[in-house]
Amino acid sequence: MSTPHPDSGSPPTPSPTPPRVLVIGTGAIGGYYGGRLAQAGAEVAALCRSDFATVQAQGIRIESLQGDFHFQPQPVLRHPADYAGCPDYILVSLKVLPEIVVADLIRPVVGPKTAIVLIQNGIEIESTVAAAFPENETLSALAFICVSRTAPGVLRHTCYGRLALGHYPRGESAAATRLATWFDRAGVSCLVSASIVTDRWRKLVWNAPFNPLSVLAGGLTTQQIMASPELARLAEAVMAEVVMLAAAAGHPLPPDVIEKNLRETRSMFPYKTSMLLDREAGRPLEVEAILGNAVRIAHALGVPVPRLETLCALLAP
Amino acid sequence: MSTPHPDSGSPPTPSPTPPRVLVIGTGAIGGYYGGRLAQAGAEVAALCRSDFATVQAQGIRIESLQGDFHFQPQPVLRHPADYAGCPDYILVSLKVLPEIVVADLIRPVVGPKTAIVLIQNGIEIESTVAAAFPENETLSALAFICVSRTAPGVLRHTCYGRLALGHYPRGESAAATRLATWFDRAGVSCLVSASIVTDRWRKLVWNAPFNPLSVLAGGLTTQQIMASPELARLAEAVMAEVVMLAAAAGHPLPPDVIEKNLRETRSMFPYKTSMLLDREAGRPLEVEAILGNAVRIAHALGVPVPRLETLCALLAP
Repeated sequence: MSTPHPDSGSPPTPSPTPPRVLVIGTGAIGGYYGGRLAQAGAEVAALCRSDFATVQAQGIRIESLQGDFHFQPQPVLRHPADYAGCPDYILVSLKVLPEIVVADLIRPVVGPKTAIVLIQNGIEIESTVAAAFPENETLSALAFICVSRTAPGVLRHTCYGRLALGHYPRGESAAATRLATWFDRAGVSCLVSASIVTDRWRKLVWNAPFNPLSVLAGGLTTQQIMASPELARLAEAVMAEVVMLAAAAGHPLPPDVIEKNLRETRSMFPYKTSMLLDREAGRPLEVEAILGNAVRIAHALGVPVPRLETLCALLAP
Repeated sequence: MSTPHPDSGSPPTPSPTPPRVLVIGTGAIGGYYGGRLAQAGAEVAALCRSDFATVQAQGIRIESLQGDFHFQPQPVLRHPADYAGCPDYILVSLKVLPEIVVADLIRPVVGPKTAIVLIQNGIEIESTVAAAFPENETLSALAFICVSRTAPGVLRHTCYGRLALGHYPRGESAAATRLATWFDRAGVSCLVSASIVTDRWRKLVWNAPFNPLSVLAGGLTTQQIMASPELARLAEAVMAEVVMLAAAAGHPLPPDVIEKNLRETRSMFPYKTSMLLDREAGRPLEVEAILGNAVRIAHALGVPVPRLETLCALLAP
């Protein structure tokens, strides 16, 4: 990236045109990554529901381990149709819940060149959107970050922060590369992946045990889970089911993926999963994205996943 | 049973000698069944800890669907060694918890002719006691009843009430028959079984799914569990694991046992399991008796029980 000379009215090489980005949902993920893109110079608007008044009046304050910053989306919208024109990127950072139909929500603002970016948890979360907009590019993204909303218009970013991003279902993508470049400008490490679905399975190896166990075992951090021999064994057994299922689904993972996940979890600070934070806040849980879709894929492929089924059923009510 | 003539000083035929019974633990089960034996004319003493003062002062009031009654154990003891002589029956109705070592607790009062009766939940709960007192008879008993302690010295009996009782590990028993006769006198249906361990496995078919699911799925009644398709399927799958394990352990169950359990549960009034009542009251849960022992037997026999393992691990912390 060339940087404009500070003493010059215009840069020596044409500056890349800032992308126009519409963030859907200003929860922790949308607020944080939207804010980073704005820091990098992108034109970032945001669609908010519950936080609308706060975000319009004062924007979003992000208390980050990397330094606090302020993000004022321009404009702040209540309805996608109020957006002027069509954005280059629609950044969907809503929770994956059965009652949220992303395709319906974004339809008014998807233009012919709009790329739809899904920064969401779980597996098999892209196909509905990709099918609804077959002419548009769907980018699938994974956030590796600890960030949470502590009040309306306030986020706290406590560790990590990188992204992985790729064309869905696979392959190279100029739109992904361009977006990654803008994240890079704001210091967000963003890996462009040609096999993002495999990456999603790899992330599920961690999410599938630790999210449900943290809730079902009575509100435990990752450290507390690993400190219980029974739960640590269960976490490992759930990981093994995910690895077997991923391979059957055409996404073989490296042989050391379980061992590596367990080791890294042991060395992490005590961490509350997003599902546990949701439970503690009385919010709905992302059961389908993290477990239900995997169980359905297992049934379709005839792969036995009794532990995933059990966790999924226990979280269903 | 002949009844003494009320107008006669002594009955025309010798009345059977009332058994001397020591009830260990005056929770719901011990208080209820001890009280029934006392109604029948048995000499029933009780060992209490937390309720000692209340039970000594005013006994136990049982509010029963069959009619309220009062049970005054004679005497009420703090320590087993305070019992005069040795009872014919020690009726152990404590919860099955790792910190409670029944053999140590009752040792001071086990005489050469004392039969030890375990009215407790779960599977494989008898072997330690039977091994500790090889010269004594161990009787294993299952209570099919809804009864709970609503306050110190107060129980509420809301449905069912029958017992199954038998020599451990199997076979005929004069002591079991005698005790059943005394229960019968008080109107408690008491089946004497020559294969009580098989009966325990049959009861586990119900307990193994419904106790854990009621707690882990967030405090649900049996009706709420059966109303969730995911949980009802999980309950059935857990039952199938128990049936397979029971067969491997030498206790084949009737082929319709699962179907029958599901049907009966659907037709039951909404019911809170004992494990859920324990959880709501902040008491420890009988995880080992209901799940842990079954999982250990499965491992020893090489029977896969992934769902039992999962439920057990989730309840372990």
